[in-house]
Amino acid sequence: MVVDLRSDTVTKPSEAMREAAKNADVGDDVYRDDPSVNELERRAAEILGKEAGLFVPSGTMGNQVAIRTHTDRGQELLADEHAHVLKWELGAVAQLSSLQTRLLDFGESAVPTPEQVREGIVEESLHEAGTGLFCLENTHNYRGGVAISKAEIDAAAEAAHDHGVPVHLDGARLFNAAESLDTDAAELAENVDSVMFCLSKGLGAPVGSMLVGEQEFIDRARRTRKLFGGGMRQAGMIAAPGLLALENRGHLAADHRRAERIAEGLGEIDGIETAEPDTNIVVADVAGTGLNAEAFVGEIEQHGVLAVAFGETTVRFTTNWDVTDGDVEGAIDSVRTAMAER
Amino acid sequence: MVVDLRSDTVTKPSEAMREAAKNADVGDDVYRDDPSVNELERRAAEILGKEAGLFVPSGTMGNQVAIRTHTDRGQELLADEHAHVLKWELGAVAQLSSLQTRLLDFGESAVPTPEQVREGIVEESLHEAGTGLFCLENTHNYRGGVAISKAEIDAAAEAAHDHGVPVHLDGARLFNAAESLDTDAAELAENVDSVMFCLSKGLGAPVGSMLVGEQEFIDRARRTRKLFGGGMRQAGMIAAPGLLALENRGHLAADHRRAERIAEGLGEIDGIETAEPDTNIVVADVAGTGLNAEAFVGEIEQHGVLAVAFGETTVRFTTNWDVTDGDVEGAIDSVRTAMAER
Amino acid sequence: MVVDLRSDTVTKPSEAMREAAKNADVGDDVYRDDPSVNELERRAAEILGKEAGLFVPSGTMGNQVAIRTHTDRGQELLADEHAHVLKWELGAVAQLSSLQTRLLDFGESAVPTPEQVREGIVEESLHEAGTGLFCLENTHNYRGGVAISKAEIDAAAEAAHDHGVPVHLDGARLFNAAESLDTDAAELAENVDSVMFCLSKGLGAPVGSMLVGEQEFIDRARRTRKLFGGGMRQAGMIAAPGLLALENRGHLAADHRRAERIAEGLGEIDGIETAEPDTNIVVADVAGTGLNAEAFVGEIEQHGVLAVAFGETTVRFTTNWDVTDGDVEGAIDSVRTAMAER
Amino acid sequence: MVVDLRSDTVTKPSEAMREAAKNADVGDDVYRDDPSVNELERRAAEILGKEAGLFVPSGTMGNQVAIRTHTDRGQELLADEHAHVLKWELGAVAQLSSLQTRLLDFGESAVPTPEQVREGIVEESLHEAGTGLFCLENTHNYRGGVAISKAEIDAAAEAAHDHGVPVHLDGARLFNAAESLDTDAAELAENVDSVMFCLSKGLGAPVGSMLVGEQEFIDRARRTRKLFGGGMRQAGMIAAPGLLALENRGHLAADHRRAERIAEGLGEIDGIETAEPDTNIVVADVAGTGLNAEAFVGEIEQHGVLAVAFGETTVRFTTNWDVTDGDVEGAIDSVRTAMAER
Ligand SMILES: [Ca+2]
Ligand SMILES: [Ca+2]
Ligand SMILES: [Ca+2]
Ligand SMILES: [Ca+2]
Ligand SMILES: [Ca+2]
Ligand SMILES: [Ca+2]
Repeated sequence: MVVDLRSDTVTKPSEAMREAAKNADVGDDVYRDDPSVNELERRAAEILGKEAGLFVPSGTMGNQVAIRTHTDRGQELLADEHAHVLKWELGAVAQLSSLQTRLLDFGESAVPTPEQVREGIVEESLHEAGTGLFCLENTHNYRGGVAISKAEIDAAAEAAHDHGVPVHLDGARLFNAAESLDTDAAELAENVDSVMFCLSKGLGAPVGSMLVGEQEFIDRARRTRKLFGGGMRQAGMIAAPGLLALENRGHLAADHRRAERIAEGLGEIDGIETAEPDTNIVVADVAGTGLNAEAFVGEIEQHGVLAVAFGETTVRFTTNWDVTDGDVEGAIDSVRTAMAER
Repeated sequence: MVVDLRSDTVTKPSEAMREAAKNADVGDDVYRDDPSVNELERRAAEILGKEAGLFVPSGTMGNQVAIRTHTDRGQELLADEHAHVLKWELGAVAQLSSLQTRLLDFGESAVPTPEQVREGIVEESLHEAGTGLFCLENTHNYRGGVAISKAEIDAAAEAAHDHGVPVHLDGARLFNAAESLDTDAAELAENVDSVMFCLSKGLGAPVGSMLVGEQEFIDRARRTRKLFGGGMRQAGMIAAPGLLALENRGHLAADHRRAERIAEGLGEIDGIETAEPDTNIVVADVAGTGLNAEAFVGEIEQHGVLAVAFGETTVRFTTNWDVTDGDVEGAIDSVRTAMAER
Repeated sequence: MVVDLRSDTVTKPSEAMREAAKNADVGDDVYRDDPSVNELERRAAEILGKEAGLFVPSGTMGNQVAIRTHTDRGQELLADEHAHVLKWELGAVAQLSSLQTRLLDFGESAVPTPEQVREGIVEESLHEAGTGLFCLENTHNYRGGVAISKAEIDAAAEAAHDHGVPVHLDGARLFNAAESLDTDAAELAENVDSVMFCLSKGLGAPVGSMLVGEQEFIDRARRTRKLFGGGMRQAGMIAAPGLLALENRGHLAADHRRAERIAEGLGEIDGIETAEPDTNIVVADVAGTGLNAEAFVGEIEQHGVLAVAFGETTVRFTTNWDVTDGDVEGAIDSVRTAMAER
Repeated sequence: MVVDLRSDTVTKPSEAMREAAKNADVGDDVYRDDPSVNELERRAAEILGKEAGLFVPSGTMGNQVAIRTHTDRGQELLADEHAHVLKWELGAVAQLSSLQTRLLDFGESAVPTPEQVREGIVEESLHEAGTGLFCLENTHNYRGGVAISKAEIDAAAEAAHDHGVPVHLDGARLFNAAESLDTDAAELAENVDSVMFCLSKGLGAPVGSMLVGEQEFIDRARRTRKLFGGGMRQAGMIAAPGLLALENRGHLAADHRRAERIAEGLGEIDGIETAEPDTNIVVADVAGTGLNAEAFVGEIEQHGVLAVAFGETTVRFTTNWDVTDGDVEGAIDSVRTAMAER
């Protein structure tokens, strides 16, 4: 038996989602004729408290469409040195938007202080590319699925806005943050200018992410999406299950509870250090096992547990709705066995 | 009643496709774990006679991924002045691949002579950006759905290859060309280096296009797709109906027959000139009606016929599997009435 | 003895220019503290009838700074298929400004009709990159140093302006055009938005070109120049001789007379066809000699005449102030001898 | 009387340089026909211990030509967060080379440890842009003209080379570093792949910088220079004084002595903190005066001392050969008076 804890991107669609795909009312979305896409875009905006939404094939596209739409060439992007948009999107901010990146160290809290934001912002001058966009990430993937509170987001966003710099929120797992903080996603998004969130991760949809913001912004983003090749035709076939995913988010609490159990269970194994997770992501430091991350991942894979090497000695385990309580206990046992047998 | 002849992109999925979506075997395609996508990619390559395939969310992405993967920055792209990749893809060749475009006039045949190709190719020098890619389009959309023969493609491609320039074929409607020429798509693709074709147009699939080429090329294209945000997760939900579309292409002949009837019927109307179409696209010159294309399209829309303004006085009518023989006769009658009532 | 007719870029500075360099009042031009540069920029603008000027190290930089300053990414540049900015500037319009190029065939007159301009302009839409700039070239290098009249420029520029498209004039040899047309350069420049002209070609300066336009445009262009690395320090050392070159243009008439003599003399040689030149550039078709351009250039180089292969069978000869009447007669004799001895 | 301590870019050419300009042997450098440029390029390479050299109009161009020539699009540049190439070159690394920037904090030593370099390097993967270039800066401008030793450079460069990453050295003031460290510039450059150094700063030349490296690299860099518009014609007029500047570097020691005196003198003023400078740059922290940098610079300008606001409360004073011992004492007195009179 294999327990797949690599990512919540691996979630498979429910039967209800499959039915929804089959019965979706569709049209050509490039002509805005797909009722299922239109409804999904309307609801996504509504739930996030924004004016309009846009369906995109991936989180990377949602982020990069937002980044290009907010900025002009010759500007800087201010973001965490471990931001997903910089770390795992193939240099797209430079490739697709010609932005220079100015990095901050967001630290363990995964959010900079207003002071840090202010210091990172560059005023445009004859010699200096001005800052065009500030990016936050919630939950913050690389920093361990950390959920950032509304107060922290608002303070950082206000610092950027004070200098006329718009704020994009990479909210690939924003609903995990909302669940963890016991608040609404709309609250967390209130003071940022745009939000990308993924339907296909913890929410369980097969394909797609949403970008939301002001109507005028989304109108321009639609054109950027077309430029990047993200304009799809009878996309209702995936939008309909996406809408189901968006409306049914009750299961996220269980994902978090299981992540907590994984952190606890792995933390009891010699050589593995874990912290209590905020959400569905557990980052374990395996330095004490004498293995680096790659080797550790290889070892436990042999015992049927799939995880992802994150840093030199850090390994990420992610729960999702296809992972049961039994899977969790089995995975902990298998990792313990794997380490014991070395 | 409305007859929608705007495009073959509006085709809605069949019941069989909807069932296929519902029952699709899926996985996370970014990890290469989606069996339906893997099978679709394998079959697409096989049918086109190439080593490997890549599923992409749109034809624009397929073309632009190919263009970037074939080239280095600082090169030129050689293509028809009316190529889709230049005309309706938002300047993506410059935006996403930093290529300078050198245009040829492919003329009515929609394919340049080897001599034209040779003259259009620029050798790299201290002062000159060398040609990095030559693009063909079959069928050629703007030039009226013209089908280009294997002999013509091969001659043009050979001229490019003689100068070490690779050839990409925008085959959005390549199976329409094959049907019209009574040949295999693989024959038409034999001497080009990569082909993009659309599942979502005449073939009737809800979403997606395919890029095929050599294994090494597709491996690199997969990374470019990721850069553009085209990496999807449980994409089998759309790949499965796409595979059905790919396997069942018998209906294209009827689309062509209906286009022929539209050309004939419209051509009998005063002020409208049409040529016999090669495939499912009819381009009518409406100059003789005293209306420009925009106004003409507006008039016939009032009579329930949807078409697309193409040039100053040219209008495109496109058949697809949702258009019946009755629709065709009705549309001709409606256009006649619309013109008579002016 | 060698007669160098490769280009007017080879002009060596006069003694007066060398003295001017030696005695130049200089400062740090990045701080705007160089009096010689400031005066050159002021005079260049005045002579061209524009508000402000900018000194740049090369004609390529002047053109490309103008192109980027006029446009936004995601737009099209409309220009002749044989424009210098596209042909010999290494794809810079795509590399440095991310512009897609739409080419016109300006034909023998080297200037498009208003109708051609209108047809080449693309309105921005969801699918189409709008036209951001229209470029003219006067004299037109590749088309044989053709001088375009004020009436022709104005008509083409008006067509662009009617669609809100600005016009840049590549006037590398604009003073040659003015001389040929017996008019002021300011007249020719009246209805374009920016002009680049070279000090270092026929005018004889050692280094540099000028960009002129409205104050607001030049202010932004200064920043683009800095981006491209064109901000120099005590640039008065080259600006001072440049100013001399600009003020003393009387010698251009003799360059044109000598070009006329070259055309006449070469045209009498068997196998060489020439047309009467407008300015200082003679393009000879050597097809009748049985040699291609490269081979022809190699042959005459052996007889002490330097020229440039332009097209397949066309060779360019350019007069400049270092070429005397004696040089001209000697060159004609040498070419005749070279052909006779084959 | 005004003492200009803004920058060493303001150095005016000596009489000998002016004579050299006047008498320069020149030709068209785009054709490689300028003997003065050729000799300057040869000598620059020789002095730095590299195979070949390239004359460029500015330090920004030299750096950006090197950066683009070393890299492919879709890569990362690893550099100090306060590197000149990122801070004051208008985002050129993203604009001109489409590179994503990964920043390190080089700290007070102005050079990262091998460990930091290793951690900053990203291996290319399906998700990650690989590191394409590592940049060092010596002396390091923003960090106070710090001179980095050969041992430190070599260790950092070796760490990069171990991962196959080339190293570019922004040596705008490399000869200041060599003077300070009592070594040869060639020693400092031995283990980096390319070096840019400025003729127009402390060395006193009117215009220009040099890029040196392997022959093959410089050949490609020449083409990049052309792309950026840096190809000049009779550039010997500025190359000849540049060569004089390069050969006569004995005066740098006095610049450093004067900077030391400025640091000492200013440091005795209440509210001003200075550290002993390595070279000709003094960075003073003026926080204790109750003024921010901009206000401080404004105050002392009123007393005839020109300096540059660097950070929030840091001000840069730079000596150069136009600054005498008397100027230094006068400037210290003036700053003291300015602070006393507040
Ligand atoms: Ca999923
Ligand atoms: Ca369809
Ligand atoms: Ca008719
Ligand atoms: Ca010259
Ligand atoms: Ca200087
Ligand atoms: Ca003190």
